[in-house]
Amino acid sequence: MKRWLFTLLMVFFSTQVAIGASGRISEDTRACIECHSSLHPGIVADWKESRMAKISPVEALKKPGLERRISVEKVAESLAGFVVGCAECHTMGAEKHGDTFDHEGYQVHVVVTPKDCATCHPVEVEQYGKNLMSHAYGNLKENPVYHNLAETTNGVQAFKHMKTVYKGPDVETDAGSCYYCHGTRVKVDGVRMRDTDFGDMEFPILSGWPNQGVGRVNPDESEGSCAACHTRHQFSIEMARKPHTCSECHKGPDVPAHRVYMVSKHGNIYSALGKGWNYTAVPWAVGRDFTAPTCGTCHVSLVVSEEGGAVAKRSHQMNDRIPWRIFGLIYAHAHPKSPDTTIVKNKAGLPLPTELTGEPVVDYLIDEKEQGKRRKTMQKVCLSCHSQGWVDGQFGRFERTIKTTNEMTLTATKILLSAWEKGAAKGLAQNDSIFNEAIEKKWVEQWLFFANSTRYASAMAGADYGVFANGRWYMSKNIQEMADWLEFKLKRN
Amino acid sequence: MKRWLFTLLMVFFSTQVAIGASGRISEDTRACIECHSSLHPGIVADWKESRMAKISPVEALKKPGLERRISVEKVAESLAGFVVGCAECHTMGAEKHGDTFDHEGYQVHVVVTPKDCATCHPVEVEQYGKNLMSHAYGNLKENPVYHNLAETTNGVQAFKHMKTVYKGPDVETDAGSCYYCHGTRVKVDGVRMRDTDFGDMEFPILSGWPNQGVGRVNPDESEGSCAACHTRHQFSIEMARKPHTCSECHKGPDVPAHRVYMVSKHGNIYSALGKGWNYTAVPWAVGRDFTAPTCGTCHVSLVVSEEGGAVAKRSHQMNDRIPWRIFGLIYAHAHPKSPDTTIVKNKAGLPLPTELTGEPVVDYLIDEKEQGKRRKTMQKVCLSCHSQGWVDGQFGRFERTIKTTNEMTLTATKILLSAWEKGAAKGLAQNDSIFNEAIEKKWVEQWLFFANSTRYASAMAGADYGVFANGRWYMSKNIQEMADWLEFKLKRN
Amino acid sequence: MKRWLFTLLMVFFSTQVAIGASGRISEDTRACIECHSSLHPGIVADWKESRMAKISPVEALKKPGLERRISVEKVAESLAGFVVGCAECHTMGAEKHGDTFDHEGYQVHVVVTPKDCATCHPVEVEQYGKNLMSHAYGNLKENPVYHNLAETTNGVQAFKHMKTVYKGPDVETDAGSCYYCHGTRVKVDGVRMRDTDFGDMEFPILSGWPNQGVGRVNPDESEGSCAACHTRHQFSIEMARKPHTCSECHKGPDVPAHRVYMVSKHGNIYSALGKGWNYTAVPWAVGRDFTAPTCGTCHVSLVVSEEGGAVAKRSHQMNDRIPWRIFGLIYAHAHPKSPDTTIVKNKAGLPLPTELTGEPVVDYLIDEKEQGKRRKTMQKVCLSCHSQGWVDGQFGRFERTIKTTNEMTLTATKILLSAWEKGAAKGLAQNDSIFNEAIEKKWVEQWLFFANSTRYASAMAGADYGVFANGRWYMSKNIQEMADWLEFKLKRN
Repeated sequence: MKRWLFTLLMVFFSTQVAIGASGRISEDTRACIECHSSLHPGIVADWKESRMAKISPVEALKKPGLERRISVEKVAESLAGFVVGCAECHTMGAEKHGDTFDHEGYQVHVVVTPKDCATCHPVEVEQYGKNLMSHAYGNLKENPVYHNLAETTNGVQAFKHMKTVYKGPDVETDAGSCYYCHGTRVKVDGVRMRDTDFGDMEFPILSGWPNQGVGRVNPDESEGSCAACHTRHQFSIEMARKPHTCSECHKGPDVPAHRVYMVSKHGNIYSALGKGWNYTAVPWAVGRDFTAPTCGTCHVSLVVSEEGGAVAKRSHQMNDRIPWRIFGLIYAHAHPKSPDTTIVKNKAGLPLPTELTGEPVVDYLIDEKEQGKRRKTMQKVCLSCHSQGWVDGQFGRFERTIKTTNEMTLTATKILLSAWEKGAAKGLAQNDSIFNEAIEKKWVEQWLFFANSTRYASAMAGADYGVFANGRWYMSKNIQEMADWLEFKLKRN
Repeated sequence: MKRWLFTLLMVFFSTQVAIGASGRISEDTRACIECHSSLHPGIVADWKESRMAKISPVEALKKPGLERRISVEKVAESLAGFVVGCAECHTMGAEKHGDTFDHEGYQVHVVVTPKDCATCHPVEVEQYGKNLMSHAYGNLKENPVYHNLAETTNGVQAFKHMKTVYKGPDVETDAGSCYYCHGTRVKVDGVRMRDTDFGDMEFPILSGWPNQGVGRVNPDESEGSCAACHTRHQFSIEMARKPHTCSECHKGPDVPAHRVYMVSKHGNIYSALGKGWNYTAVPWAVGRDFTAPTCGTCHVSLVVSEEGGAVAKRSHQMNDRIPWRIFGLIYAHAHPKSPDTTIVKNKAGLPLPTELTGEPVVDYLIDEKEQGKRRKTMQKVCLSCHSQGWVDGQFGRFERTIKTTNEMTLTATKILLSAWEKGAAKGLAQNDSIFNEAIEKKWVEQWLFFANSTRYASAMAGADYGVFANGRWYMSKNIQEMADWLEFKLKRN
Repeated sequence: MKRWLFTLLMVFFSTQVAIGASGRISEDTRACIECHSSLHPGIVADWKESRMAKISPVEALKKPGLERRISVEKVAESLAGFVVGCAECHTMGAEKHGDTFDHEGYQVHVVVTPKDCATCHPVEVEQYGKNLMSHAYGNLKENPVYHNLAETTNGVQAFKHMKTVYKGPDVETDAGSCYYCHGTRVKVDGVRMRDTDFGDMEFPILSGWPNQGVGRVNPDESEGSCAACHTRHQFSIEMARKPHTCSECHKGPDVPAHRVYMVSKHGNIYSALGKGWNYTAVPWAVGRDFTAPTCGTCHVSLVVSEEGGAVAKRSHQMNDRIPWRIFGLIYAHAHPKSPDTTIVKNKAGLPLPTELTGEPVVDYLIDEKEQGKRRKTMQKVCLSCHSQGWVDGQFGRFERTIKTTNEMTLTATKILLSAWEKGAAKGLAQNDSIFNEAIEKKWVEQWLFFANSTRYASAMAGADYGVFANGRWYMSKNIQEMADWLEFKLKRN
């Protein structure tokens, strides 16, 4: 078996390199690298570039004040002296992980979860748990209205006797579409024997895998995947701070944040001059390290002025700077109180934060005082580079846009209600899906694409996304087309 | 008031830094920086990076020939010896600025205008005045046809008794959409007292603010904002030369210049290799400084060959290299003579440069001789890297596309005219808006989206924008759909 | 004639520079540069940056094993000692090139073809000949079904007596749209005398010029243009390896590979961290040179592990890593055996690789065994950074998507067949184009845009392109709209 010999030789050399790079790699991690540096060279090389591979938790703890990146008070002695390598994350707390399996004598789990990361970053994990994103799986899967939207989108249709017929989507389709971002439920579905370079080996079969969605439900029942933004295995803060990371899930017509950013003045500055910025400084100083915000600057990062004055605290809750929820739902509304939105019920009994006609379901939403507080927190960032007059003008327009886009959604809703009433389509009263007919799909686009896009354009000043690029032009045109559709449908056969 | 003390300390240190950076900052500008470096650290840091902060006008005047970036013959003595800082721009000619207010003893205006910039750059400001862009506010606002297009796009609609009803847009909506790029009218609408870190202070309330649109009407009645492209407060020539700057207003489906560029061979070279180019050299040498054009290369910049031979003169008029107007209007046509297009009237009395059926209104448009001159000026740039045969082929295709897209627009117009004639929609004869019904909106898309996109694709060789990405595919499909709409509408109820 | 003098002086200086840069430029090439460095400074400067301008074939041959970039065994003596300059490519084998003309005593051809490149790179040219792309001209032009799709897209329509009428496109339109990517047929259409800086000169008139399409039919009857990806005149491997190059033809809604890549995790890593990668190393080592794949990594490049182990062989055939053909055709299907698809015929006699109802025409397609082999070749690349479980999950979803998107195309096809049958539209039985009516164009979008986009999203994990960005949402909506269209069409007049 020459392949064996070749592999062993490669392992020998690569291990030498690894050991050379740092003497403080734990013995268990060295054992991982021995084989995996030749099996999956990209993973090991990537990790070697990471801060995790270079600094032990104990060294990380020595960083003063705002420079510190880990939030635990004290690291367990067993971990403290080594850099954070394969074994540290993939064998930690083996008993809690449903996907732990015996691998060459080690108790390894494939899926590293927020609970693992919380060993050193408990504050961030706790904050993230208050973020809507950490509940993205359940908020879609367990909300009957939204779940039906996903099903009618992903399901396959047939055409029989001049009628269309829906059937529900399969799990692979769901996992590769909506739940790619929302997160899948990852479970062990048995084991599989595999013939590897190192002989036969047994591995768990994971359903819902691969996935790095923000609300992934892990085999240890924790929610989320830190790797959604802190991409394995380099975990680069530079990458997390750059807008491309957010674009993975926030670029489509339903949530065009990245598109809007890229045509905004901020995005323009980033694209033209951002190559010279410092993306790894902690804390992150406006003016010194960068001269225009990325997504992270406004929504997550610890930002200071050049002289060290605090501009914004780091927050993985994110919504503490967000007074409004401007996308995803039928109407924009005050941010929900709880990240678990399955608990919301409107007067009509639907799991929605507003009535179908737009009135907010106030019990589940933050009040104006809390909105004011969040608005101010966000504006603190704006004021680093803009006068109060500028910022007031900007927010005035944004909040006006929330109002007018909601009005346009109401108009579209009234056309839909007429269609249901006149029998041109079947809706709530007929106990039918509200997403499966052409007129209903046009109604969805009114809020999910066009109103959302217009609000993002207004929030982040990427004007055309509020006009011709999926903005007001389409809101206006869609209403005319919905009205015409209704007229055509009601004509005699 | 501890906050005071903290601020003062920060001010002390930051001032030291500022003074260290250059001894030639004027006393007035130092006074600005004293407070504003802590209030708006981003602005001050950005400015410090600028050429303005490093070189005084007198030094700038010493640059020989083509290297000189300012176009004034002689700078006023009061300005000559200092770098161009806050006070130089924001307190200059206080009496002419409608938004001047007393601020800590200084007569400050918020809105820096082309008239301010003309102090050192008079040639550029004069050229820019001949550019359509400087009239972008009036050309939209004062043209009844175009103004109505904006109103029916931005306005809110209601649905009552099975009918849709339009109401006009509010000023915030207009300012955040069309006029974000076209420019707002900025006016003082009273004053406001504000409780600041430095006590109560009075500030002017500016309507139409913030704005940096290309045709902004300023409180001093000048037109335009140099900051639209020369982004405050770094005023980086690198940024102005990079395509992202233009993309802020030229990326949407109505004017997809940036999208087309990015899939063209030119854009491809820029994306792949542009990181190593020199974007700050003046003059800008093809081959030495860059190997593929950005927007600025073809449309604005002073371009020379490596040996110094002139390829193109700098021009902020821009249209001196543009024989055709290929977007915005119903039909492509020879470029208008005057940048103020509100003076144009066609035979039907409409403020349009062509009849509704496409014939050009020649009195207001440049003639073939002038077109030939401009074509040649542009081709001089192409010939830096392409043979005459290549360039001829490229222009032949482009001008053929102008012809065929106009034909397709005429076909769409004929369907619309039939709809009006047969009572399927209400148009000019019925004294109704020509933009408020579904069929009319489809007609608008035919020229504003699909024909425009196809022409850009042809002009800049980004082929798919002339086929499946909003190009000929959609022109062809839209005509079929317009014809079907008319058929459906005319069916009996 | 002062211009003459000026030009001569410039030529003198530029020649000095050129000679200084390398003593091994052939005399013929020096003669070219003498004039052309001032006429087309961009071309010469670009070439000077190229590897071609720095290394002679004989030096290139000395590179050991995997580092070698040329595939010929032995270079002709006449070429061996000089770098590869203008004359080497543009005067080589003059007699075979239909566009050769006498130019200042040299026998020059404008269009450099794969046959020229094969002088040093025969293996790549041969492989490329087995790639569908090299046949892209004929596969479109000589396939009656596809040719009709192009004609109904590019042709101009008129509207007369309430009917739309198609006329075929002109050659300039075709050359600037479909054939920009597919390649034109370049032919000599006579000669033209031109008044140049160096007096009157005669040049060939080339029809179909300019063009760099992948399937260009050259004046020497060879197929393809290496410059499509290896952009003249720098021929930068960095550029060929970066995704922007592929985006020139693979970004539109019909083939959104680049868009999908850019929102995938791979694209995200490239955008955020790719600036520090080594794009010129040959062979290309995963981990050391890059940490996420570009298009080239998975589809073309010679990839090794850091220790030198082979991950993938270089291949300009490309399809040896591709089991499925997922775009362009009505249904996804096993890859065709021959790159010339004009030979394919289905049972109905149509030149399509499947029946209209989706059944594959197996005789012309690779079998499951060959698919398995290709799948494995591709997976070898994936496994550099991912476990087998991850890769299995990814491929499982992808192949499921092929199945479900084909089902959705079948449903759309059934609606279309009903429309034809009931006389709502005219199709095959009526001997009419299957692409010229609104319902037919909606059917085309079902597979050409939405199913294609969904499959790319699945193949490369750019999820939203499989949902709201031209994905399943549109597949689902389009079917509802097709059914409604049919209902409206069949209503009484």
